[in-house]
Amino acid sequence: MGEQTTLEKLNRQLQRVSGEPFYQQRLGQTAVQINSIADFEQLPLVEQGAFAVDAYAETTPRGSFYNEEIVRINLTPSAQGLRPVYLTRNDVQNVAKINAETLRDAGVTEQDIAITTLSYSLFPAGMMIHEGFEALGAKMIPVGPGDSERTRALIEQWGVTVLYGNPSFALKLAEEGIENIRVLFAGGEPFSAIDGYKDGLRQKMGSDTVLIESYGLAECTPFARECRFETGMHIVEEWLYVEVIDPITGDVLPHGQVGELVVTHLEKEAMPLIRYRTGDLAMLERSPCGCGRSLTIKGGIRGRVGSMKKVKGVKVYPEQIRALLDDYPPTAKRAFELHISASQKSYLGLRLDGSVLTEEQQTTFVQQFKKALVIVPSEILYGDITDPKTHWKEID
Amino acid sequence: MGEQTTLEKLNRQLQRVSGEPFYQQRLGQTAVQINSIADFEQLPLVEQGAFAVDAYAETTPRGSFYNEEIVRINLTPSAQGLRPVYLTRNDVQNVAKINAETLRDAGVTEQDIAITTLSYSLFPAGMMIHEGFEALGAKMIPVGPGDSERTRALIEQWGVTVLYGNPSFALKLAEEGIENIRVLFAGGEPFSAIDGYKDGLRQKMGSDTVLIESYGLAECTPFARECRFETGMHIVEEWLYVEVIDPITGDVLPHGQVGELVVTHLEKEAMPLIRYRTGDLAMLERSPCGCGRSLTIKGGIRGRVGSMKKVKGVKVYPEQIRALLDDYPPTAKRAFELHISASQKSYLGLRLDGSVLTEEQQTTFVQQFKKALVIVPSEILYGDITDPKTHWKEID
Repeated sequence: MGEQTTLEKLNRQLQRVSGEPFYQQRLGQTAVQINSIADFEQLPLVEQGAFAVDAYAETTPRGSFYNEEIVRINLTPSAQGLRPVYLTRNDVQNVAKINAETLRDAGVTEQDIAITTLSYSLFPAGMMIHEGFEALGAKMIPVGPGDSERTRALIEQWGVTVLYGNPSFALKLAEEGIENIRVLFAGGEPFSAIDGYKDGLRQKMGSDTVLIESYGLAECTPFARECRFETGMHIVEEWLYVEVIDPITGDVLPHGQVGELVVTHLEKEAMPLIRYRTGDLAMLERSPCGCGRSLTIKGGIRGRVGSMKKVKGVKVYPEQIRALLDDYPPTAKRAFELHISASQKSYLGLRLDGSVLTEEQQTTFVQQFKKALVIVPSEILYGDITDPKTHWKEID
Repeated sequence: MGEQTTLEKLNRQLQRVSGEPFYQQRLGQTAVQINSIADFEQLPLVEQGAFAVDAYAETTPRGSFYNEEIVRINLTPSAQGLRPVYLTRNDVQNVAKINAETLRDAGVTEQDIAITTLSYSLFPAGMMIHEGFEALGAKMIPVGPGDSERTRALIEQWGVTVLYGNPSFALKLAEEGIENIRVLFAGGEPFSAIDGYKDGLRQKMGSDTVLIESYGLAECTPFARECRFETGMHIVEEWLYVEVIDPITGDVLPHGQVGELVVTHLEKEAMPLIRYRTGDLAMLERSPCGCGRSLTIKGGIRGRVGSMKKVKGVKVYPEQIRALLDDYPPTAKRAFELHISASQKSYLGLRLDGSVLTEEQQTTFVQQFKKALVIVPSEILYGDITDPKTHWKEID
């Protein structure tokens, strides 16, 4: 999509939200018009917290986003309790259309019989995915979450070829024996982020199986999805404008740098997101893919903004460091611990576990660490890792 | 809808199903054309069993109704296991449109916030009802089945005004305290058929609450629904052609007589029903209602065909006799037993339980019995009722 079209869509959307009290307060009383992407990048960012409070009825009984055009109210858990996700009839149809396109890009055809084991109630995903399959023209059995035995029986009996569900559930099914699943859409839990998981699942399901990862927010689904070439998760650019920002300064970062994903809805009518901070860290890249899309989240979601630390002026993400251990056995991910001083902003200690990493591996890791983080550890310690679940320890 | 339009629609539908092997076998190899309703009434009736076997993959792996236009496969329990209900994209949209119209007739508006506690997975009802509310433009929270505490909290928090769910669940909610429900759609379990239930529920929910009963089959939903005038369940005549037949001879009965409901889809594309025997007993009446519809199922569903007995050439339904006890306390429904001779087609014994019915009530009941059934009991016995759940005992 050309920059001119993007600008037009952004302006149309800014015009539309000029009637929303939430955005009026942030963008000004009159409709904002922008002349360039640079202009757009000057607009205020929207924090999840502020959005959730407004959506969750602090301003009016149902929040300032509630209006008569809404037909569907999904709910999503938040710190404020279950908060609403609103959709108009056009939104429902647009989301179905976009899902249909990305499902087709992933290899689904009209001949496929698909099931989803996502929940259809309260939360958005189940129905929206279902509607995407129907819009494509595939045949969908709305199975919903349930026991694997019944699901396996239905897959077998119906010759189901496409499964949309939790990867752990798919793995269970594969181990109990299912055949003919050509495309697996993984949703609802980490997938690519877990080392070797995707390959292990493919091995269990058959080497021809296409494994598709998707990324979404309850307020914005679909967001990004892999295609059958598995080159990363593509952004649907006609529906979303996506930026990556420095989570501290808020400056927009160029493609190729890791930062916080920020999203703007280009068409959504109810509760649209404008420069909405997802809190998720990722890197964008533009390179043409065989499926026709080009803007891609490379290397999956790299953690949450909250996990970022700053040492000697350099941003450090534990997920980024963990990724350095990709060539080691999976247990190696627990083999390091970062010690950061709460008072001195310049102390970074690295503890390595010799019971997991060989001496050679430790040396390699330290070299990679220096290369990747630009900074060198103030101190390297050796010994047991006290808590394998966290890689951070604040000292002082 | 005029007879000419009905004829045109019936002919279009007969033309459409001429490609379905199932109907080809029954109606002939070439497309059947009819010149009158009388012609239509000569076409073969379709038995549930034969339909289920065909739908359930005896002929081809997915039954002869399976085709490329299908987008949704719902399942429904049957003697043959879970069998499919197919819908094309047009079917999905048409069902949503009809549901929207009948929900509007029942008093739902765009301003309403509705929830349904029906299941969205596997079975057809939940999603179809949801889509009906969305097509109308009302706001729907897809709650699904679950604990009454959460449902009650959502009703309160959102100011929910319309509830579509099991009446027993609604009663539970009402007893725990809910306000503002203007319209209750009862589904999933008996309602009007249970004496005093509807009135009791209305009392609990507030006397202004509209209580709507619907009738449907998994293969054909919606079928009939009450409107806000509560004059009986109206047939959506532009979508369905409904007959009442003598369950033994198969002859079409005039309006005002109780018999088996037989249904023909006028527009459905996937797995359409043509003269399909529902197995349910009811009476049709045509009288204009304030909502604009006129063809109505009066007095609810009166039982299943299997429960009918023939004595002295007269059809006897236990549900019909049970209804005679409407003026007595509910326990009185268990106060009679009919004895029928398996060998002699002319013996009908009536046993009355004096521990439940007073002598006066027994006398009244016998009088009403004679009046309603035309025939008189060969014998009237007095004493305990052995099995309160069944009202029939075959003797000899």
